[in-house]
Amino acid sequence: MLGSGFIGRFYADSLQGYRSKDKIVSIYSRKQESAKKFADDYTVAFVTTDMEAAINRPEVEVVCISLPNNLHEEAVMLCCKHNKAVISTKPLGRNASEAKRMLEAVEKAGIFNGYLEDLVYTPKFIKAHESVKNGALGRILWAKSRETHPGPHSDWFWDIEQAGGGCILDLGCHCVEITRSYIGKDIKPIEVMCWADTQVKPIDAEDHAIGLIKYENGSIAQFEVSWTFRGGLDLRDEVMGTEGTIWVNSFLRTGFEMFTTGKSANYVAEKAESNTGWVFPVGDELNELGYNHMFMDMFNAMENGTQPKETFYDGYIVNAVLDAAYASAKSKQWEPVKLDVWRGKTGLSQDQHLTDYDADHYLVKEEMTHYGAKKLILKNKKTGKIFEKEIK
Amino acid sequence: MLGSGFIGRFYADSLQGYRSKDKIVSIYSRKQESAKKFADDYTVAFVTTDMEAAINRPEVEVVCISLPNNLHEEAVMLCCKHNKAVISTKPLGRNASEAKRMLEAVEKAGIFNGYLEDLVYTPKFIKAHESVKNGALGRILWAKSRETHPGPHSDWFWDIEQAGGGCILDLGCHCVEITRSYIGKDIKPIEVMCWADTQVKPIDAEDHAIGLIKYENGSIAQFEVSWTFRGGLDLRDEVMGTEGTIWVNSFLRTGFEMFTTGKSANYVAEKAESNTGWVFPVGDELNELGYNHMFMDMFNAMENGTQPKETFYDGYIVNAVLDAAYASAKSKQWEPVKLDVWRGKTGLSQDQHLTDYDADHYLVKEEMTHYGAKKLILKNKKTGKIFEKEIK
Amino acid sequence: MLGSGFIGRFYADSLQGYRSKDKIVSIYSRKQESAKKFADDYTVAFVTTDMEAAINRPEVEVVCISLPNNLHEEAVMLCCKHNKAVISTKPLGRNASEAKRMLEAVEKAGIFNGYLEDLVYTPKFIKAHESVKNGALGRILWAKSRETHPGPHSDWFWDIEQAGGGCILDLGCHCVEITRSYIGKDIKPIEVMCWADTQVKPIDAEDHAIGLIKYENGSIAQFEVSWTFRGGLDLRDEVMGTEGTIWVNSFLRTGFEMFTTGKSANYVAEKAESNTGWVFPVGDELNELGYNHMFMDMFNAMENGTQPKETFYDGYIVNAVLDAAYASAKSKQWEPVKLDVWRGKTGLSQDQHLTDYDADHYLVKEEMTHYGAKKLILKNKKTGKIFEKEIK
Amino acid sequence: MLGSGFIGRFYADSLQGYRSKDKIVSIYSRKQESAKKFADDYTVAFVTTDMEAAINRPEVEVVCISLPNNLHEEAVMLCCKHNKAVISTKPLGRNASEAKRMLEAVEKAGIFNGYLEDLVYTPKFIKAHESVKNGALGRILWAKSRETHPGPHSDWFWDIEQAGGGCILDLGCHCVEITRSYIGKDIKPIEVMCWADTQVKPIDAEDHAIGLIKYENGSIAQFEVSWTFRGGLDLRDEVMGTEGTIWVNSFLRTGFEMFTTGKSANYVAEKAESNTGWVFPVGDELNELGYNHMFMDMFNAMENGTQPKETFYDGYIVNAVLDAAYASAKSKQWEPVKLDVWRGKTGLSQDQHLTDYDADHYLVKEEMTHYGAKKLILKNKKTGKIFEKEIK
Repeated sequence: MLGSGFIGRFYADSLQGYRSKDKIVSIYSRKQESAKKFADDYTVAFVTTDMEAAINRPEVEVVCISLPNNLHEEAVMLCCKHNKAVISTKPLGRNASEAKRMLEAVEKAGIFNGYLEDLVYTPKFIKAHESVKNGALGRILWAKSRETHPGPHSDWFWDIEQAGGGCILDLGCHCVEITRSYIGKDIKPIEVMCWADTQVKPIDAEDHAIGLIKYENGSIAQFEVSWTFRGGLDLRDEVMGTEGTIWVNSFLRTGFEMFTTGKSANYVAEKAESNTGWVFPVGDELNELGYNHMFMDMFNAMENGTQPKETFYDGYIVNAVLDAAYASAKSKQWEPVKLDVWRGKTGLSQDQHLTDYDADHYLVKEEMTHYGAKKLILKNKKTGKIFEKEIK
Repeated sequence: MLGSGFIGRFYADSLQGYRSKDKIVSIYSRKQESAKKFADDYTVAFVTTDMEAAINRPEVEVVCISLPNNLHEEAVMLCCKHNKAVISTKPLGRNASEAKRMLEAVEKAGIFNGYLEDLVYTPKFIKAHESVKNGALGRILWAKSRETHPGPHSDWFWDIEQAGGGCILDLGCHCVEITRSYIGKDIKPIEVMCWADTQVKPIDAEDHAIGLIKYENGSIAQFEVSWTFRGGLDLRDEVMGTEGTIWVNSFLRTGFEMFTTGKSANYVAEKAESNTGWVFPVGDELNELGYNHMFMDMFNAMENGTQPKETFYDGYIVNAVLDAAYASAKSKQWEPVKLDVWRGKTGLSQDQHLTDYDADHYLVKEEMTHYGAKKLILKNKKTGKIFEKEIK
Repeated sequence: MLGSGFIGRFYADSLQGYRSKDKIVSIYSRKQESAKKFADDYTVAFVTTDMEAAINRPEVEVVCISLPNNLHEEAVMLCCKHNKAVISTKPLGRNASEAKRMLEAVEKAGIFNGYLEDLVYTPKFIKAHESVKNGALGRILWAKSRETHPGPHSDWFWDIEQAGGGCILDLGCHCVEITRSYIGKDIKPIEVMCWADTQVKPIDAEDHAIGLIKYENGSIAQFEVSWTFRGGLDLRDEVMGTEGTIWVNSFLRTGFEMFTTGKSANYVAEKAESNTGWVFPVGDELNELGYNHMFMDMFNAMENGTQPKETFYDGYIVNAVLDAAYASAKSKQWEPVKLDVWRGKTGLSQDQHLTDYDADHYLVKEEMTHYGAKKLILKNKKTGKIFEKEIK
Repeated sequence: MLGSGFIGRFYADSLQGYRSKDKIVSIYSRKQESAKKFADDYTVAFVTTDMEAAINRPEVEVVCISLPNNLHEEAVMLCCKHNKAVISTKPLGRNASEAKRMLEAVEKAGIFNGYLEDLVYTPKFIKAHESVKNGALGRILWAKSRETHPGPHSDWFWDIEQAGGGCILDLGCHCVEITRSYIGKDIKPIEVMCWADTQVKPIDAEDHAIGLIKYENGSIAQFEVSWTFRGGLDLRDEVMGTEGTIWVNSFLRTGFEMFTTGKSANYVAEKAESNTGWVFPVGDELNELGYNHMFMDMFNAMENGTQPKETFYDGYIVNAVLDAAYASAKSKQWEPVKLDVWRGKTGLSQDQHLTDYDADHYLVKEEMTHYGAKKLILKNKKTGKIFEKEIK
């Protein structure tokens, strides 16, 4: 385990949770004190502030990177050097160039690589995604993911040099991969339009952004990210298809509601903002946030010699999309997604899917009236005229 | 009453509902049959297919326009000619030019004019708006309004010539005025970015669109509109401020849930898509959709010689914003909102609002840790360095 | 209007709201100051502390009683004396004896009488009730109504002499009439089982109670009432039928959610307990709580010479059921509902409704398995043996 | 593993899920075919239709009973005979006599025993229970648990001889232990009042029941159970305390909502009733229903030589409470809970907790008025008089 901060501890709680056969055997942190505390809490045998020493140990089978963004590349290169399987927290790089170098390095070294995008491993996402794949929503038109909260816990996130960006990079990386998965990971993201601003915080990076991503088949993805939201951690996805809709609320409204006058002052949930009045805890954060299913997929894939659902390639695609978002926020126009590496479909055109009513007409809409009749709105194929027709 | 269609009937239900002193005395429709039926249902004395005849009657105190968009201007001009107070359904015009001509005409004629934007009169909006005005959310950063459903009921909506556009014009007009009201109606909308597409329907206009509107003070508005949504009428607003958040769901989740195996087949709600399984009716649609409070404001204003909350001026602003949205959807870049008439503030600059922690530091964030300590993230004003500090 | 307290003001807000033709012309209060303030706020011409004087005025067409429970009977008798239509707040009496005397008096005097049970006039109830009547839920098995909050606003409620009881009488009267309406107002309530206790408050009456009411057709009603609930006004109904379910949340979760850090301190909603953190206001309390539709029904009935939905007869039934509840709380067993006056059906027996599968078997259950087969659970009519059968 | 039916498969999915070190090594079923299929699906080495053979194998460390209720006692006795740790599904016995014999047997044999009451292991329950223990709700006044659905999957549940009862035994066992845990497992349940009926199904046992359980400290528990509910699996708990409220919805409303027109027909969730329209799947049923945390507690306790949270003793208490419920449903009065074995507190009296306002007055209620004043309702300690007082 590289990194003993907030996310490293979340990972460790998941990795050693339930009745797991997996163990953390080596911990690296930039600060000795923090590494030591982590080792005590999680019973880790080897403790070091030397990253290479943490990696290069015989008992280490896989290296888990939970470091600030600017240290990912260095860590990945060391894993390549020592031929260790590597899994990295999100985002993979601070930009697509870093991500591409990491991708090429692990593939050249031939080592197992996993991208720890936990939010495509949440139980709700997994089931929703299955439904989408099974066609329950028909053709996907739009997928939105929203992650907003009052700002990250550690100082380095707020420093644009270490983090590489603001909430677009920190939170948008989740949203991009979630929506891309709903639309289809083999569908090419073409261009991005993004608004970003620093509305509240005294920082150089953006603290609020909204973006649209256009895919080659005409589907549209949307992300809404912010470090200025008040009320907790807002984590919601929405998907619209020609035959259905999915709404997922992963955090603030999950069927657990508590009112308290506040004579107790205990920890409620990650990024909750108050512990009196109505609060909305999550039962099992590790599971709801996808950590358990993510590590299960990673380690099972390693053991089976297969690829996990998320690899460095996916991390690279995400970085490329986010680069286009940053470019668009500056240029104020749609910007192309630059993909030197692309392994999905190409040359798709936008679907049309006109619905015939009969030989001469398209069906525009069909509905039931108040009084029980069937009302059709039809379009004449030749004249283009649109008219109503009622069938009793 | 001009127009006897879906919206005209909704208006009539509201106007003559409760213990009202107001009455419909004259009905015009393009079709005699429809006018006759309306007159029977609502006990209206005078029935005609001649628009001018409907208006020019001594007992008519105010004319209510519920006609297709392309007939608004003609009707307004007739009201001016006969010096009748006029209230018009939304959108005011098919574009800002039409709207501006109507605005100028009613003001020149000196007649009372009201813009029937019902969704800023819903009980939830009214209460939410009060909270915003009272500062419960602090400075407003972002306001979103979403209206999507499976498409309008009448044929003319689907015809771009009569309607003037697709779902942007039909639904976006609501969203623009809702979000503008949250941000402040005296704050100038500056520019718009919009994506629009015809993803499903065999029509010339757009059936799905998403747009962003930037205001002079840096606030951002967002609209999401579609005629391709499956699941009913999705009518939700969200507002983010520096001190709070508002979420309003006006239709599909209002505290009324019903499961039925379907041995009954009755009307559930406007634009509901099914009447078996779990359905989500609204108790009192007229009230929840704002019709009652809207007409109350209109008629009280008329009687008191004051202005209603929404006038043709507001309708014109909305049309101007939507024109910019259409321009942006074509040009693929942010487009300016062209406002020949503007009666609000000008020259605002974006707020900064840095929060001092002490003489040397800005406060980036303050939070409680799991273990009950207070954790600060601070920024040195001189060096710009960001660091954590814990207070126990 | 008799009474100028909390409920009197709610009534007045409703009566004179929207574009109403109805006016309050005379106000009585026990305290001059309170009567005067009411008259000022609602522009009432005649102000008095003499109840009879308030009633016996030529311009008074109907008397609205919003007095403490112990004064209802006196007020009703004065209305009888002066031959004035009367509508009374809930509960009608402090017990069935009082209620019966009032019922007999108004019927003998031949005056219009209405029972102001607002919660069977809420828009949600009205629509839900229609669905039930239309058979959407099949045969009704169970109806529950819950009303709990942190306690009433005025001192007299807490005094068992004036109020006649505690939360059973104050809140249970609503629940009894709501559930009775779902089950059918012509179905006879037979017996009641009730638990009641004074768990928290320093009072003689109960502050928490739960009761079950058995109807002649085997349907069961349930009430849950308390003055010790924390978190606001919890107002929920649930109905189970053989073909469906209804869940109504009338107050705390109606599609309006607000988070605020609390720099504002304004009134949120009746019986809300906090104004910071997540709060859940109701858009239009008067409408959501049924006042508007209630007065509309009352006055329309008066004008049409018909009966309103709720009369003193209904108030009497409710009191009789509550009397049985108090008896059961003491005796710790089911107690019969004593109804000297009953105008509904009698002699019903409990429904059986066995579902035949074929000549030899009853259908116990039918379901779809994971793997798409249809699974039946059947009962042999002769042997009584229950077994599974799968159909692919 | 004894039993290869619905619940056995759920257990197996959980036991061998995630990255578990635990394995099923032996499977017994009454039917060879079913045992064989189970063994294939879960890679179980030893398959038998001889219960004793399944138990008496050296590699078996713990026996998991997932058999019909009437076979629990036999299975437990065999575990005692062969000195195997045993964990049993719920309810422990068909009645308290059976449960008591099992309890005494395992304790005499000195073997590890666990009671598989999964619903006190759900992540939501665990967190809610922590909050209650930490005092977030103050003194607990009432705890309700509701489990209703359209009926169980297997035939034996519907047969009163095998099952021992109807929905009270099947579902009430969950509700009793959930509510007992909120109130405090060391607080003695004293008496029970229960209504039960067979309203719909052609069976001898009850298909709908509601019960109240009084505890020695005056707290009240409530269960609502039914096999006639339409709409899916309704699994909700509510807790009221002097300082707060908890609402948990474990199944039908967990933040996952899907609308589909139904071109897909896949499995949605345990006991869902439809797969078109609006459906409400649960992300990870095994985790949400508590299986994972339950087995973790059981096996960790075994390895550590400690007791799990739920033992046969708890199963016995639950059976004793349910026996009283059945007795009450017959006698129509409150029935005492007969506990030959009780290891908690005794002799508690009901709490009073009067709140002093000052030397002469109790505080009845304190609230904020619309207009910002503080309103107190006080009771004179000597005279008992209750009055209002306003503080500005």
